[in-house]
Amino acid sequence: MEREFVDSLREALPPHPLLKLGVGDDAAVLAMASSEDCVVTTDLLADGTHFLASETDAELIGHKSLAVNLSDLAAMAATPVAVVASLLLPRDGVGSLTWPEVGRRLLRGMLPLAEEHGTAIAGGDTNVWPGRLAVSITAIGSVPPDDVLTRAGAQPGDRLLVTGELGGSIEGRHLSFSPRVREARLLNERYPLHAAMDLSDGLAIDLHRLAEASGVGAVVSARDVPASPAAERLALAAGGDALDYALTDGEDFELLIAAPPDAAAAIVREQPVACGVTDIGGVVDHGVWIDRVSGGRVALPPNGYEHR
Amino acid sequence: MEREFVDSLREALPPHPLLKLGVGDDAAVLAMASSEDCVVTTDLLADGTHFLASETDAELIGHKSLAVNLSDLAAMAATPVAVVASLLLPRDGVGSLTWPEVGRRLLRGMLPLAEEHGTAIAGGDTNVWPGRLAVSITAIGSVPPDDVLTRAGAQPGDRLLVTGELGGSIEGRHLSFSPRVREARLLNERYPLHAAMDLSDGLAIDLHRLAEASGVGAVVSARDVPASPAAERLALAAGGDALDYALTDGEDFELLIAAPPDAAAAIVREQPVACGVTDIGGVVDHGVWIDRVSGGRVALPPNGYEHR
Repeated sequence: MEREFVDSLREALPPHPLLKLGVGDDAAVLAMASSEDCVVTTDLLADGTHFLASETDAELIGHKSLAVNLSDLAAMAATPVAVVASLLLPRDGVGSLTWPEVGRRLLRGMLPLAEEHGTAIAGGDTNVWPGRLAVSITAIGSVPPDDVLTRAGAQPGDRLLVTGELGGSIEGRHLSFSPRVREARLLNERYPLHAAMDLSDGLAIDLHRLAEASGVGAVVSARDVPASPAAERLALAAGGDALDYALTDGEDFELLIAAPPDAAAAIVREQPVACGVTDIGGVVDHGVWIDRVSGGRVALPPNGYEHR
Repeated sequence: MEREFVDSLREALPPHPLLKLGVGDDAAVLAMASSEDCVVTTDLLADGTHFLASETDAELIGHKSLAVNLSDLAAMAATPVAVVASLLLPRDGVGSLTWPEVGRRLLRGMLPLAEEHGTAIAGGDTNVWPGRLAVSITAIGSVPPDDVLTRAGAQPGDRLLVTGELGGSIEGRHLSFSPRVREARLLNERYPLHAAMDLSDGLAIDLHRLAEASGVGAVVSARDVPASPAAERLALAAGGDALDYALTDGEDFELLIAAPPDAAAAIVREQPVACGVTDIGGVVDHGVWIDRVSGGRVALPPNGYEHR
């Protein structure tokens, strides 16, 4: 039964120019660009931890499972080549859906995103089990060796940039977001960037991570952090400040970039990507700080911003 | 807490010459051999389906999770380069073990096997959740484009070979087996092989798969199938025939190879690998058959052998 299901999935998979051998043999074979490095990332999304299967459209779960992996490739400025996906499908299905229906919806959520980014779905493993729903994806990309962007290159004096707007992802964007793959490649090709990561756990804690990996510090300017409309709505409803949501909400999946001042100024002036890029602060020698709207520089803790 | 656990795991991971960037950034970076293709496979093992977590040493689960993936690379005659591993750890642990203890044991089961095969553990994703234990691994290997072995190259007239002995894996070998990575590469380098796969679901059904992928048929000689001592023991205990176990037991993880007659004869004569290689039959135009010990050729069904 699993085999018939897998055969039906296989027919839904489009061919890909770099995929020399796809689903059906013991492994897939990819032709990689000969002078490029191979970038690999894996992220698993699980019911009860990353989503609630009973309350979430399985297509969105499929989309998100692929998108978080592509976002990690984007953070390295890599070009996605292929993904493999392992599914854990509950034997009794999810809600009114049987397990094959859940599996098909997961795939239907992945296919448009894979196509949009020219990414082959090269293989997978479908398991029907007595447990809960989970989706494990591994994404493989390529990047010229000298072009890879890591968290480790930020230098004092660099400016800090973010794509898009931050906070309030819980209102829906955390499921439906677009990974910044093209944006990262375009920015990295056109400007001399120093470091990057994707914002998965919230700007405050992720700033600490970038700073730690680079052996530097960071200062963010409260008035420059681009809070999303969703963050504004949440703040309004709770009587708080949208900045708090923009600093500490997770799952923005925007890019945090360190770039030398000239390049950062050019990016902000030229605005070469549709999602927008904002200068939110700069790299310093040590510590992670925020310049308050009301004046004064205070420490920005890694686990949430205390608004004053 | 998950992060501290991941940091402790990271320290256990050895460096690897092809791993330019390992665990800790958004993705890992691998230097692939420039003229080779990239071979990718993924297999997920889940509690209640592939093992019983309550009854199985987590080190063996870790070993098996990696071994089944390396076995798929072996089936393509690929050289393992790196793996990524995603863990689903039950929040309440397994038996008397806490979830960090389970995670560490899983890794401890993987490390010796990874080292033996020169395989980097390049990344992963640790999730503590309200569900059951599962381990998802993706393995990446490399192979010169002209050397990849698939299921699709068997030709009528070829001989069929298997490594090792078959059947009775349930007695323990299914957890502790050695993937035939070196054996596959050595045989493929030294002899002109036509096709291969690893035996994961049992010789009878896997023969059907090889035959279907190659568009051919197969005949196996009952008297030549190498039944393992475990298969002999099971047969003795049940009053049956060890051949049945050798034909239909899953999880042998031996290689099934199609090779031209001269090459097959040379392999059997020279016995270049320690596990041994046996000629079990030949490739024909169509159908999958077995030549009985008592004489006569009968169809070999894909889902188990009816002993006569």
